Amino acid sequence: MIIADLDTPAVVVDLDRMEANIARLQRYLDEHGIANRPHIKTHKVPEFAKKQLAAGAVGIACQKVSEAEVMADAGLEDIFLPYNIIGTAKLARLMRLAARVRFSVTADSAFTVRGYAGAATEAGIELPVLVEFDSGTHRCGVQTPREAAELGQLIADSAGLRFGGLMTFPHDAESDVFVSATKALLKLSGLSVDCVSYGGTPAMWSAHERTEVTEYRAGTYIYGDRSIIKAGSMTLDQIALSVVTTVVSRPTADRGILDGGSKTFSSDLLGLDGHGLILEYPEARFYAMSEEHGHVDFGPCARKPEIGERVTVIPNHTCPVSNLFDEVIGVRNGQVEQVFAVAARGTVH
Amino acid sequence: MIIADLDTPAVVVDLDRMEANIARLQRYLDEHGIANRPHIKTHKVPEFAKKQLAAGAVGIACQKVSEAEVMADAGLEDIFLPYNIIGTAKLARLMRLAARVRFSVTADSAFTVRGYAGAATEAGIELPVLVEFDSGTHRCGVQTPREAAELGQLIADSAGLRFGGLMTFPHDAESDVFVSATKALLKLSGLSVDCVSYGGTPAMWSAHERTEVTEYRAGTYIYGDRSIIKAGSMTLDQIALSVVTTVVSRPTADRGILDGGSKTFSSDLLGLDGHGLILEYPEARFYAMSEEHGHVDFGPCARKPEIGERVTVIPNHTCPVSNLFDEVIGVRNGQVEQVFAVAARGTVH
Repeated sequence: MIIADLDTPAVVVDLDRMEANIARLQRYLDEHGIANRPHIKTHKVPEFAKKQLAAGAVGIACQKVSEAEVMADAGLEDIFLPYNIIGTAKLARLMRLAARVRFSVTADSAFTVRGYAGAATEAGIELPVLVEFDSGTHRCGVQTPREAAELGQLIADSAGLRFGGLMTFPHDAESDVFVSATKALLKLSGLSVDCVSYGGTPAMWSAHERTEVTEYRAGTYIYGDRSIIKAGSMTLDQIALSVVTTVVSRPTADRGILDGGSKTFSSDLLGLDGHGLILEYPEARFYAMSEEHGHVDFGPCARKPEIGERVTVIPNHTCPVSNLFDEVIGVRNGQVEQVFAVAARGTVH
Repeated sequence: MIIADLDTPAVVVDLDRMEANIARLQRYLDEHGIANRPHIKTHKVPEFAKKQLAAGAVGIACQKVSEAEVMADAGLEDIFLPYNIIGTAKLARLMRLAARVRFSVTADSAFTVRGYAGAATEAGIELPVLVEFDSGTHRCGVQTPREAAELGQLIADSAGLRFGGLMTFPHDAESDVFVSATKALLKLSGLSVDCVSYGGTPAMWSAHERTEVTEYRAGTYIYGDRSIIKAGSMTLDQIALSVVTTVVSRPTADRGILDGGSKTFSSDLLGLDGHGLILEYPEARFYAMSEEHGHVDFGPCARKPEIGERVTVIPNHTCPVSNLFDEVIGVRNGQVEQVFAVAARGTVH
């Protein structure tokens, strides 16, 4: 079967490009002696995680317990969950995971640490816990090196836990300053920081400029998307995921409607103009979406599509696209090679 | 099991409220002699479609062939698919549907009509086709009454097809003017317009002001959401769907992070400020999202939540929320009554 035979909308992954993306980041991190721990939240496909491992990754990162469970079931053996896991039910599942694979988590509060300690002690497990610090997302993470050191100390002092290091996303020179100050504080009490985990695809090629990083987590790099092209860390001919759609309506001279909308692409803009790049009509403006319709202005295009014509869209953000689909279609040289289940999607906790 | 025992994030449907929402719109449309054809794209749950039928709906509307297939498999027998269905594969599936349930579709172009005619003739089926017109979405739909009449005539003249009437979304007084003009044109060639299908939850309570409408399609009304409260057609105490989340981090005095982000709520803003209303902290600003984190400013709140506290979020837009989850949890008086599979999600075409 060839791409032109697929019903639309179809999420197509160019396997040659994907493998090249996997190899490129691995080579770079290897060159700089940084461990590679790809984040699977982008693809959620166990087979792709295994390709990342085969290329040299030390393990994977997941964002939810359920993702980690799917990956562990599929044979992935080293999983980092950079999230504050809270609540009896999730902690019980965490301990079952930690009992069967090499597993680590993060915390940014004493509350989270106490939850881990209680569950790990009861399960008779030693759980590595990294301290998350805030390097600019203004999301989770302790705010100062002093808080980081205190939390690291609390982890080290807690039965059932091992202090696993420091974690953040994204990173810049200030992140190194934060880590360095935290290390100095921890050294006073004899604690060393074995792992410093940074992450993010947009700034992946500057990982080697960081003086403190030991491990890198990137997710989107496996596919790339319009936001990553804008960030300058991938080029259009490296983008491995696209969505093939059909023009289902041409109600006016300029307007064209695609059979993919916010339930196909998500509404993520990430600061971009429009909802995607149409490869066959790069001047077109994908200016609005309904749930199952993409609204495109083909006015700027010299030639305009016919109804029934198929067009290929590079999404703004690939991660939510994978999450909306139950399967992605792996192609090589335009031929369908294998359909992959997005096995770790849809499991909410 | 009670709501407080559910792991988070959990999509909770208050069944009493949902049933009241179903009954309220049905009663209103009955009073005004308008047929009710709820759009199931909001819930995608066959059991809920059956509740809508039991309350008096004449049938359902779906937005994709795959949704219609799931609903037909579940025993729904009257399905309208207001979409231009294009391509050999989908047309074949459409004909299989039309052979087993009462089925109708729309078209806004001769291209789409010719596709239906070819497939219906081959299948030996008479397929009702409504003409979609553009009443202000600037999405699909013919632009003028003349185009509508010409397309209606083409449908009527096509072997295998029957002219089924006119369809649009949303509606206002201009929609009636459009329909009236189209009817006059069609009358010249002896064609009558048996069905005029309008739709939309925001303007549902003004359906009776329309002089031409015979059938109404609303989707979101079954649950409601923040956008519908803003539109003034539902009140907060009628909203049946909410997402229960946990505060997983309190990194600063004001900031709180929830365990639900864009992969839980979608990024749909629909012109609203923020990503949802937090019932327990109505002054809080849900100002940003990562994929699995909700970023909330609790600064304006007199009391602020503790880590581990659970908060209930009314989403901006319920339709993409259902679409992100494999199941919703039906509760009554705070007790879990039944878990429902979102059976028609994830099937992309």
